[in-house]
Amino acid sequence: MKIKTVSLSLFLVLFILGKPPAVSAQNNAKSLAEKLGFPRDAKLLIVHADDVGMTHSVNAATIKALESGNVNSASIMVPCPWFPEIAEYAKSHPDVDFGLHLTLTSERVYYRWGPVASKDEVPSLVDANGYFHHDWTATTPINPKEAELELRAQIDRAHRMGIHPTHLDSHQYRLIDNGKELFEAFLRVAHDYKLPVFVTRDWFADHLYLESSLTPTDIVLDHTITISPAVPPEKWTDFYRTALKNLQPGVTEFVIHLAFADDEMKAATLERDTWGAAWRQRDFDFFRSQGFRELLREENIKLVTWRELARAAGQ
Amino acid sequence: MKIKTVSLSLFLVLFILGKPPAVSAQNNAKSLAEKLGFPRDAKLLIVHADDVGMTHSVNAATIKALESGNVNSASIMVPCPWFPEIAEYAKSHPDVDFGLHLTLTSERVYYRWGPVASKDEVPSLVDANGYFHHDWTATTPINPKEAELELRAQIDRAHRMGIHPTHLDSHQYRLIDNGKELFEAFLRVAHDYKLPVFVTRDWFADHLYLESSLTPTDIVLDHTITISPAVPPEKWTDFYRTALKNLQPGVTEFVIHLAFADDEMKAATLERDTWGAAWRQRDFDFFRSQGFRELLREENIKLVTWRELARAAGQ
Repeated sequence: MKIKTVSLSLFLVLFILGKPPAVSAQNNAKSLAEKLGFPRDAKLLIVHADDVGMTHSVNAATIKALESGNVNSASIMVPCPWFPEIAEYAKSHPDVDFGLHLTLTSERVYYRWGPVASKDEVPSLVDANGYFHHDWTATTPINPKEAELELRAQIDRAHRMGIHPTHLDSHQYRLIDNGKELFEAFLRVAHDYKLPVFVTRDWFADHLYLESSLTPTDIVLDHTITISPAVPPEKWTDFYRTALKNLQPGVTEFVIHLAFADDEMKAATLERDTWGAAWRQRDFDFFRSQGFRELLREENIKLVTWRELARAAGQ
Repeated sequence: MKIKTVSLSLFLVLFILGKPPAVSAQNNAKSLAEKLGFPRDAKLLIVHADDVGMTHSVNAATIKALESGNVNSASIMVPCPWFPEIAEYAKSHPDVDFGLHLTLTSERVYYRWGPVASKDEVPSLVDANGYFHHDWTATTPINPKEAELELRAQIDRAHRMGIHPTHLDSHQYRLIDNGKELFEAFLRVAHDYKLPVFVTRDWFADHLYLESSLTPTDIVLDHTITISPAVPPEKWTDFYRTALKNLQPGVTEFVIHLAFADDEMKAATLERDTWGAAWRQRDFDFFRSQGFRELLREENIKLVTWRELARAAGQ
């Protein structure tokens, strides 16, 4: 989880050093903002809730936040037990900007899930009990062919159950952080299904294969921001206020994690506080607040969705 | 779910017609009660909570009820998402009378699970999305060999995760109600793992293959009682009071379903009230009540566990 654990101080340095949106890793004169019909220096934001389908609590909080209008995009974990509940919602709310949060890990201890594909077909992805690995280590040699098969199985189940996703992203950034082969499998699947993947120029320096694997038609976001364990609970609002006040021109995705701090979510995340029930309740509270809405207006930040991005990019 | 839907009136008839415990479908002179060291006419009761592992709410309510002492046995659904939570509890509480609630269906709509075995190996058990079938119909030809393979996979996962079950039973009575081949697969697995199965003489008339398939060493309970959808919520306590006051001599299992009527459980059982959140909260409230404890004392009913039964039967 390298990307998620960027510390607060490093994060502030990134703000200071933040470059304006690049014109052309994509051999294309127009910036993403311009393709969307905004001026080059417009501040555009996707407020994106991850992990939908993980628990009922995540589903209920995300639906509430999406319906408030302050959160405008989200992505769904197809292998998770509560996937059918959110699939039903997505099917009956086809305008909501739902992507698929492609998932190859089961990172909790007391509540777990496994692959959509047959376990026999993806042995490198599962532990001795048939769940996705809790974590990937040096002794977890993930087979990219098996990963690709599982990604396709997840998208196929989503389609069968009535979801028409607007984008793809990767749970815990596993398909971003773990080498060229996995990223290329991710990209190949995305191209086959004609869906944009969440990737940002912020990551290019850390993983050279990202930029070199992308094609000129792939959408690349300018920036992404996510809160980290280095931020203490009492600084939650400060973090987001600072982030919004320092938002760079171009398209930024806020990656947030919503749930209620209820019995289910507390039990599901009992073993550690990071991305736990209280964390997710804090995100829910901030992004549902009047203060967040006012900051967007004060800073002249416009919300955009993956559906709009894909349309603007001609996908 | 034939067995579960016995109506209240039929249930009362059963009380009236109820035979005393048979000595010997098992070629054995001693009744189960006598093997346990009780007089032949003792009223012995297993208060058994089903469906543990299904949700966090079921786990939390069942643990609370078990720790109160009024509920003294339970069985665990290995394929369910919250299985790891209850496995951890069972591992650290090895004296609790936990069996395995062998599961081949995923009967809810918004929250689902699938097999422990590889889907490729058990194609007849899964639907197009890889979940266990929602229900079994004429167009769901369950392959008993695949069912047996899945039952073994569930027991093996339970063992690997630290559970030493005291007995086996069948979620929704699927392995009891659906023909000789499935019952014999169930029994074969139980014999191989040296575990008693929950079967009662009450069912022999409806399914002739039960009695003919059992061997002389198999434990057979005298009676079982479970509340049915025919009982209105306001009659819940009356039903159980009547059942306890009319309890027959011999060993009876009360099959009960515990959970809290919280957000998770309400959402998991949203599509119908039967065995839903409110139902399970009512069961929890009755079996945790002082009234239940007093009835046991007044009626001179003694609680016994599957562990005691297996020990008494020399298993």
